[in-house]
Amino acid sequence: MPMEGKELKAFLEEIRLCHWATVDPEGRPGVRPLWYLYEDRAFWFTTRLESRRTGTDVAAGSSVAVSIASEERPYRAVILHGTPEVWEEDREVRLERIATRYGDAEGRRWLAGALKEPDRVVLR
Amino acid sequence: MPMEGKELKAFLEEIRLCHWATVDPEGRPGVRPLWYLYEDRAFWFTTRLESRRTGTDVAAGSSVAVSIASEERPYRAVILHGTPEVWEEDREVRLERIATRYGDAEGRRWLAGALKEPDRVVLR
Repeated sequence: MPMEGKELKAFLEEIRLCHWATVDPEGRPGVRPLWYLYEDRAFWFTTRLESRRTGTDVAAGSSVAVSIASEERPYRAVILHGTPEVWEEDREVRLERIATRYGDAEGRRWLAGALKEPDRVVLR
Repeated sequence: MPMEGKELKAFLEEIRLCHWATVDPEGRPGVRPLWYLYEDRAFWFTTRLESRRTGTDVAAGSSVAVSIASEERPYRAVILHGTPEVWEEDREVRLERIATRYGDAEGRRWLAGALKEPDRVVLR
């Protein structure tokens, strides 16, 4: 039975990784665990457009499929398909929101490094 | 630091879902949570070749990328790339091993139904 409304929102707000799948320019699939944030009725991710395959495939035009799944029965999963856009507006705030969702201290430590990465982006 | 030997084996034997990424004939990525089993130095999966996208993409020639990740820090993940083969030999035993890894009673219940599915396969 599909999740909807509050149940879906609550599921997406639970802390877990998503798995981010792309296609490389040769047509081969790739998949990686990635942080995500569901907020303001949108999904937010962060990667690096030049130095992470999760990002280079997107920069090369790949669309994205994302799987978010619970390990507990009954199995529940949300699968997304789409083409992310690079989000410039309030980039730093979004980065912080994404990173601290997975732990406040670790998130802030990560953020300090990430802000120095020239190809670090927020994807919506 | 890459995992090796016993640590890698122990990680792969922990009970969690993998995420299975393929490319459809139009070049779009797809990803789904899937059961897996690591045994006899190989990875084992099950899907349906005609009625699940995880299977139809493989039947159409897609290679596969698989992500297996822990949710706990320090994050650990194993990523596989390859082309699975349909495994006919001792198919029923493998199906049972895959399914019961995720719960004995539920696995056996699932198996009873799965054995009636004409396109159900074991992939190695």
